[in-house]
Amino acid sequence: MSRFTVHDLAATIDARAASGGEASYTRKLLDKGAEHCAKKLGEEAVETVIAAVENDRDHLIGESADLLFHLLVLLKSRGVTLEEVEAALGQRQNMSGLEEKASRKRD
Amino acid sequence: MSRFTVHDLAATIDARAASGGEASYTRKLLDKGAEHCAKKLGEEAVETVIAAVENDRDHLIGESADLLFHLLVLLKSRGVTLEEVEAALGQRQNMSGLEEKASRKRD
Amino acid sequence: MSRFTVHDLAATIDARAASGGEASYTRKLLDKGAEHCAKKLGEEAVETVIAAVENDRDHLIGESADLLFHLLVLLKSRGVTLEEVEAALGQRQNMSGLEEKASRKRD
Amino acid sequence: MSRFTVHDLAATIDARAASGGEASYTRKLLDKGAEHCAKKLGEEAVETVIAAVENDRDHLIGESADLLFHLLVLLKSRGVTLEEVEAALGQRQNMSGLEEKASRKRD
Repeated sequence: MSRFTVHDLAATIDARAASGGEASYTRKLLDKGAEHCAKKLGEEAVETVIAAVENDRDHLIGESADLLFHLLVLLKSRGVTLEEVEAALGQRQNMSGLEEKASRKRD
Repeated sequence: MSRFTVHDLAATIDARAASGGEASYTRKLLDKGAEHCAKKLGEEAVETVIAAVENDRDHLIGESADLLFHLLVLLKSRGVTLEEVEAALGQRQNMSGLEEKASRKRD
Repeated sequence: MSRFTVHDLAATIDARAASGGEASYTRKLLDKGAEHCAKKLGEEAVETVIAAVENDRDHLIGESADLLFHLLVLLKSRGVTLEEVEAALGQRQNMSGLEEKASRKRD
Repeated sequence: MSRFTVHDLAATIDARAASGGEASYTRKLLDKGAEHCAKKLGEEAVETVIAAVENDRDHLIGESADLLFHLLVLLKSRGVTLEEVEAALGQRQNMSGLEEKASRKRD
């Protein structure tokens, strides 16, 4: 049996966004709009930062899971797919030599 | 030819972290330590929030790509793998009925 | 009658931190520890960012008030006073010519 | 001689915003617009969070000073004064009994 991936999570979010019936947590977030989803993403990022600085491994795993979930919900709220984000990552990868140089300068 | 995924990105980060020679941007981030990686993650999250609120689709795709990259680097800095985070996501998925109820209460 | 200032707010927080009896919101925050206070500060900062980007003046005033309150509570949780922060600001002011140049370089 | 306060900082920012001649760091931030100022505020908040969690007192003082500075610049970019934020804080203070109860429920 194959393991659960971030792509499965994206598919779950799509399904919950589309489903009728009792509202899921995902649907409730989306119904509150992109600003609310953005706020939640920001909160989860702060918690991920704290878990990383505290060097609490289990906490970091849990908060990173929350962060990924809320990032995918935020993308959904703006009609952006995970594949589009991955395509942007892939493009950077291909020009990675130059890209890296540019990044180094910027940073 | 298969498309680029977040798992390919994680593999690239692993390779760059392990490689000798001229330091990549990834290696430079890791060399500065987990606190620095956490700071960068926080900054990218703020930019993702702003792009989402401004409703700038291309900006949101780019910032989300940056956020994913810096999340994976932060995880690497603490010895956590993407698979561990996905396993946590999968566990929540399996108990999703109860989980959702708990989430609703918490929120 | 003089108007309310951020220094009055700091004095109120000191008083609530010291008072017995039914716990105030301030005391409850402090009892949860500095990490919790830091998390709340981060959340309020995200909301301030969103209000500013949305260009909602009243929202920005309200969120900035929340941010200042939670900053002062966070400082209290670490035994730092507003006066110490203001002293740091004053020192930068005095060497402002050079400081500014350094800031420009850094940014 | 009186000590430097956050109100002196606000006055300095007003003066720099209005001054001609070579652009100060303050003027440069304002010229880049409210979104940029909001981004900087978010970054400083993340650094304040990290300093607080690391329990590094001097770092926390320095980052809090940066956060206050960037908050005042952000307010300036939206035409909001520190006095307006303090008035909002004062109003909450006056109804503090009820306010506190509401805060407790919300939190």
